[in-house]
Amino acid sequence: MERPELFAVVMAGGSGTRFWPASRRARPKQFLPVWGGQPMIAATCARLEGLVPWERILVVTAESQSALVRAALPRLPRENLLAEPAARNTAPCVAFAAEEVARRARDAVQVVLPSDHVIHPTSAFQETLSAAAEEAAAADVLVIFGVKPDHPATGYGYIEAGARAGLRGLIPVHAVARFVEKPVRALAEEFLASKRYYWNSGMFVWRTSAIRSAMRAHAPAIAEGFARVAAGEPLARVYPTLPSVAIDVAVLERAGNVRMLPIDYAWSDVGSWAALPGLHAADRDGNWSVLAGGAELLTEDAHGCLAYGEGAEVIALIGVRDLVVVRAGNATLVCPLERAQDVKRIVERLARGGERFL
Amino acid sequence: MERPELFAVVMAGGSGTRFWPASRRARPKQFLPVWGGQPMIAATCARLEGLVPWERILVVTAESQSALVRAALPRLPRENLLAEPAARNTAPCVAFAAEEVARRARDAVQVVLPSDHVIHPTSAFQETLSAAAEEAAAADVLVIFGVKPDHPATGYGYIEAGARAGLRGLIPVHAVARFVEKPVRALAEEFLASKRYYWNSGMFVWRTSAIRSAMRAHAPAIAEGFARVAAGEPLARVYPTLPSVAIDVAVLERAGNVRMLPIDYAWSDVGSWAALPGLHAADRDGNWSVLAGGAELLTEDAHGCLAYGEGAEVIALIGVRDLVVVRAGNATLVCPLERAQDVKRIVERLARGGERFL
Repeated sequence: MERPELFAVVMAGGSGTRFWPASRRARPKQFLPVWGGQPMIAATCARLEGLVPWERILVVTAESQSALVRAALPRLPRENLLAEPAARNTAPCVAFAAEEVARRARDAVQVVLPSDHVIHPTSAFQETLSAAAEEAAAADVLVIFGVKPDHPATGYGYIEAGARAGLRGLIPVHAVARFVEKPVRALAEEFLASKRYYWNSGMFVWRTSAIRSAMRAHAPAIAEGFARVAAGEPLARVYPTLPSVAIDVAVLERAGNVRMLPIDYAWSDVGSWAALPGLHAADRDGNWSVLAGGAELLTEDAHGCLAYGEGAEVIALIGVRDLVVVRAGNATLVCPLERAQDVKRIVERLARGGERFL
Repeated sequence: MERPELFAVVMAGGSGTRFWPASRRARPKQFLPVWGGQPMIAATCARLEGLVPWERILVVTAESQSALVRAALPRLPRENLLAEPAARNTAPCVAFAAEEVARRARDAVQVVLPSDHVIHPTSAFQETLSAAAEEAAAADVLVIFGVKPDHPATGYGYIEAGARAGLRGLIPVHAVARFVEKPVRALAEEFLASKRYYWNSGMFVWRTSAIRSAMRAHAPAIAEGFARVAAGEPLARVYPTLPSVAIDVAVLERAGNVRMLPIDYAWSDVGSWAALPGLHAADRDGNWSVLAGGAELLTEDAHGCLAYGEGAEVIALIGVRDLVVVRAGNATLVCPLERAQDVKRIVERLARGGERFL
């Protein structure tokens, strides 16, 4: 069998605020170096090295973020940057990218990736991706990556794995029994104990023909919208009229041909400051630091703290425990790690009169 | 009796580090707006308004801080800024200023003030100062201001008041029984209970003739040094050879003609960040803020914290208690208020390789 070309679609339209004050309206999380010293979107593309050349990486983003993408990804060809005329969640984004892939290659396989996840080691990820690409090349299936849970998270959607549908190399391919929305704690504990449930990673692999056909079947409004674009109607007029819906909900949960490949190595969608300590080695005092641009951390009897800095500055922590301390731009945040989710309250308040800090 | 002119000598040579990172080598505490929205040295001079005109205020400082003094005190005549050739503690500084006052007026009364104290209300301070000036004008005495203690502080020297030596207006004038170095806690509690002990404020009033005569008697090396300067030797050569000693130790503790006037209103030498909450009204969540230059504080369930900012920045505190959070220049400090004295450890460590942050 001839192996089709592998394209990558990197979705970078997010405008998360949970990493305020490092993330801002004008610089969402995917542009932050929260792990590995480079912007998350650059790390996402770097994980594809050897499997997908730059010419076949498409980045879908908001027009307002185009300059940030170009700065973070200097090797991305200019024509591979797709600007969404409006933010409409992931289903229209996936369809938009699929049409573009279709213009460039006959029925290629494409991997769709969020731009703001941390995954390692890269070698393990590439094995999963290669297996998924083989599976998608061979059959009319929609492949989703499921992350093996290591704790009863209530912040993720879950996938119940169905019967084993095959094996690609050493990697099992599962049918999908069902998708489950974010569960309450007790249910999440059951899922964890059962060993049949996986976190929905939001990463997908399929052939252009498979996703187009699934769109027509399960998200006809979107498919029809792109048919109008193909007939000459401007994207800028059609796109804002498309339903704002996630690809999981619009298509995956309804399709009968979904396959799941497990990820049993480190993955995080890095949902808040509290996720970072799990991704970094602590220093000898048990503190974590994410420092760029010459930032330094100096501690005196401080333990369990996370420090984030991005300029030629020093953060000095004395006698404090389990805090996140962030210095970024014109703002400073001090918060217990366990309350990192409350950053959104500050952001909400700033939206009412403190926009210069957003 | 003709009332002699009143001069003020403001000592601004300090290089305190206990307010790091707001205080720096290049900007000691007396230039910080820690209270009342203006640099402490400006507040010190403002407290003299109506009693001592700018023409009779002398500021003694380090050559390196001259520009800061001029910026903080734009109305100070240029010739009233006395630059010490070296830092030699307060006794040589007092003698230096006394010689300058002697050149300008025949046996004037002078009040010697540190530049970095908080005192209020100003009206009460001026009453004490006027009474002290009358006392010094009338007799060959060295007047010191003693602060009535409101807690058993172990960080101050104490003055044991002797017999009542007079009354100036409504203000009693005491002889001084003895000076006591910083006491241990139990002793400080005894002092507080006895009601006979006062904190040594480091503020003095005397006639030029009285301090010159006391210098000759108790600090002859300093008096002789200035005699050599009067005979033509350059100050820059003599000054560094003078003993580095505090005026209290060199002269006051040895002299028999010391008088003490009590201060029974708010006074603080503002020895560390922990002193600031006592000087400011708390907001409704029990936090204190010292904000200049457009800095803002935003709290979410934070209590008992002190925030210091001096630029167009926001400090956001979520779910924290009793912390001092300082944003200044290229540094950020987070520390429990009760450990504010440990800031000096950070400063010591920065002196060994982090001088760009000092």
